[in-house]
Amino acid sequence: MSRTIHLALHPYGVGGPGQHGLWKDPSIAKNASIDIDYYIRQAELAEEALFDALFIVDSQFINATYPAHYLNRLEPLTLLSAVATHTRHLGLVGTASSTYNSPFNLARRFASLDHISRGRAGWNVVTSFDTGAAQNFGLDEHLDYAARYGRALEFVQVARGLWDSYEDDAFPADVERNVFLDPSKLHALDHVGEHLKVAGPLNISRSPQGQPVIFQAGVSEEGRDLAARVAEGIYAPGGGLAQAQEYYADIKKRTAAYGRDPDHIKIFIHGGPIVAPTEEAARRREREIFAEDDDFDRNLALLGRSFGAYDFSGHDLDAPFPDVAHLAERGGRTGAQKIIDRARAENLTLRQVAQSVREFRRSPFVGTPQQVAGTIEEWFAAGTFDGINLAFRTEAELTAFVEGVVPLLQKRGLFRTAYEADTLRGNLGLPIPENRYTRERRLANEPEGAAR
Amino acid sequence: MSRTIHLALHPYGVGGPGQHGLWKDPSIAKNASIDIDYYIRQAELAEEALFDALFIVDSQFINATYPAHYLNRLEPLTLLSAVATHTRHLGLVGTASSTYNSPFNLARRFASLDHISRGRAGWNVVTSFDTGAAQNFGLDEHLDYAARYGRALEFVQVARGLWDSYEDDAFPADVERNVFLDPSKLHALDHVGEHLKVAGPLNISRSPQGQPVIFQAGVSEEGRDLAARVAEGIYAPGGGLAQAQEYYADIKKRTAAYGRDPDHIKIFIHGGPIVAPTEEAARRREREIFAEDDDFDRNLALLGRSFGAYDFSGHDLDAPFPDVAHLAERGGRTGAQKIIDRARAENLTLRQVAQSVREFRRSPFVGTPQQVAGTIEEWFAAGTFDGINLAFRTEAELTAFVEGVVPLLQKRGLFRTAYEADTLRGNLGLPIPENRYTRERRLANEPEGAAR
Repeated sequence: MSRTIHLALHPYGVGGPGQHGLWKDPSIAKNASIDIDYYIRQAELAEEALFDALFIVDSQFINATYPAHYLNRLEPLTLLSAVATHTRHLGLVGTASSTYNSPFNLARRFASLDHISRGRAGWNVVTSFDTGAAQNFGLDEHLDYAARYGRALEFVQVARGLWDSYEDDAFPADVERNVFLDPSKLHALDHVGEHLKVAGPLNISRSPQGQPVIFQAGVSEEGRDLAARVAEGIYAPGGGLAQAQEYYADIKKRTAAYGRDPDHIKIFIHGGPIVAPTEEAARRREREIFAEDDDFDRNLALLGRSFGAYDFSGHDLDAPFPDVAHLAERGGRTGAQKIIDRARAENLTLRQVAQSVREFRRSPFVGTPQQVAGTIEEWFAAGTFDGINLAFRTEAELTAFVEGVVPLLQKRGLFRTAYEADTLRGNLGLPIPENRYTRERRLANEPEGAAR
Repeated sequence: MSRTIHLALHPYGVGGPGQHGLWKDPSIAKNASIDIDYYIRQAELAEEALFDALFIVDSQFINATYPAHYLNRLEPLTLLSAVATHTRHLGLVGTASSTYNSPFNLARRFASLDHISRGRAGWNVVTSFDTGAAQNFGLDEHLDYAARYGRALEFVQVARGLWDSYEDDAFPADVERNVFLDPSKLHALDHVGEHLKVAGPLNISRSPQGQPVIFQAGVSEEGRDLAARVAEGIYAPGGGLAQAQEYYADIKKRTAAYGRDPDHIKIFIHGGPIVAPTEEAARRREREIFAEDDDFDRNLALLGRSFGAYDFSGHDLDAPFPDVAHLAERGGRTGAQKIIDRARAENLTLRQVAQSVREFRRSPFVGTPQQVAGTIEEWFAAGTFDGINLAFRTEAELTAFVEGVVPLLQKRGLFRTAYEADTLRGNLGLPIPENRYTRERRLANEPEGAAR
């Protein structure tokens, strides 16, 4: 089978980054972000369209300047559990922080979602770059970058260890022999590491996928390294074709360098397609959306978010961009450093920097259905992605893509015409990891030669 | 309206405490405890029967000696979210530990469940008496009793503070005025206490119930005090009629002493009714169930659980009960101390103590439907409970109660014939708490005389 494209849907309710005015759209319910029926509807549309997954972002800190969807939304795991029983094929990927959760609780909740969905759970691991989040969890100081990534790696390893607590055949439930559990198939992890100490075992059995699928969004050196080590799906940063090619090749190479099959890490790029009957109409719509979201105060707050929700409003707007390098390490380091570098190189004032910061992510996929399908094919052939994470503003936009573009991709053999499987692993072409204890026993029992 | 009885259903899947052999029953699916369809079915049956709530217990530690249902089960919040969209009236009460969760995450998940269920979430606050749980959360030592209860009280207070982050009218979503959020209605908690430090605000709005309903199960002095201060529902300990009367009167009195309306704390006793066409058949069934669960090794492990999963198997079974008083403080203190006192008073060996420890809780509600309805009425009139937390072994037992006993209770005016409300608060007769900031403003604006 030739390679095909994976598609995920990323619903933003009343409006995420770059969509601050979206709640005013009359087709969007004012409470969409806390209305489970909105999410069930989005999931049903995504499943009808044969998409791979529903993707739910998250954060643990807000103030009044945040996008409408961030201010008031459902928690991802409870949300996805409710969606699970209304779908049968769609993957359910929830974001959760490895900095502000405990591995026992979080591993358990994802395993529970994997059972409830019968094998469709995915975990998007984030380290939380909002420094304000620390104060919601009893800490004065946000963990620094290295500690957050060190903990993230160890956290995923511990979660996977906990997911292996029971071997697949741990519960014979044999009435005649009076054996419900075979205790030799229950294993405590007894993990003691630099950041975490977790005994186990977990109180839930191996789920249909063996282990939920790990997603990540590595951009920095640490982020890319973490992705290459443990991720099975990636939400790639934005950028042009050349940047996307560089990122794609780099991640696949790093993954192979860790002895992993580079096909077992699926790279999703962000796509907010704008599809219209004519190219001119699509470009006009793009300009409208861009203009809608121009608000200086909001951009100043947004700028602050890259530096850990720092409040820039006390600074002189027309003086040179202030020295905030010390804040970059604790915030979203890579993005923050880029802003500093550019301000210095171009000698920009704070006002100029704030004006240039925009959440709107320009999509390469703008035009008629034919044009958008063509650009998708071109980017895919150029080695820029395995999948697209699709964000639409309205249901009408989603429908325009599904009815206009998807059939063209299918005709070109680039997208499925039926689900391959009932599990997320199955649809993404990812293997089910063998239980570590089962594997140990199998290897120990194999004849010398075969063990290689 | 005269007082009526509240009923909750407590499903135990493949078998909880005192039901170790239940998984062998051919009418029970071997994977019931991890099968969401089992829970949805139980919830639908409970809702058809007009019960107030589905109640899900929990724990964070297992070893191979635990009851089948504990070994491998869904996590309560993900479970209840999935059940929520398949029910419309039934309360959804999930157990979660105040010792092993962070208030920000947990308050958020219950608020999310309250939105998803449109006002039916309840939180059963437990402090986790299994000392083994500590090692699943990075601690060498379990928190001692006083610290756990101190933290529990502060945790509930913080959760309630976070649930008030937004006032009810915080989101005007006024297109004409271009105001989605009214920032003056968003409040940070800035809590700094003995056990917890949480800034807030929470990133989810007030839910339909204002705040999810707080349940608790206080037995000890600390437990009863916590219940009287913050609980709106209680899972009462077992015992005979006189004990239940003492407990009921004590909790109501303590609640009033804290200035609260004693009607706003609903006391549920445990009931595992055994209903049969004749009294003799019901008694025979009771003896069978009791005998089924007699297993010395399991009882020895169960004994250990009262002392923090202590392993008694290294002790001489026929020597006097060993001195384990130092373990009682860290385990389930009240129960452990009772065991020690009795062993001393009656000069028992370890074997004798283990033989006398049984998980089976004798129910007062055994007999024909007429007899069971009669006993329920008698206990209710005697001031022993506001509600019964019903545990059945099989669906047939549940049906026997619903078809045999419930209509008799309805005929006597003791149980509803239709739901009063769509929310758990509404059906339990509990008020919706006013947002604290709204209240402050209201009181400040009232004329002097009216202010009190």
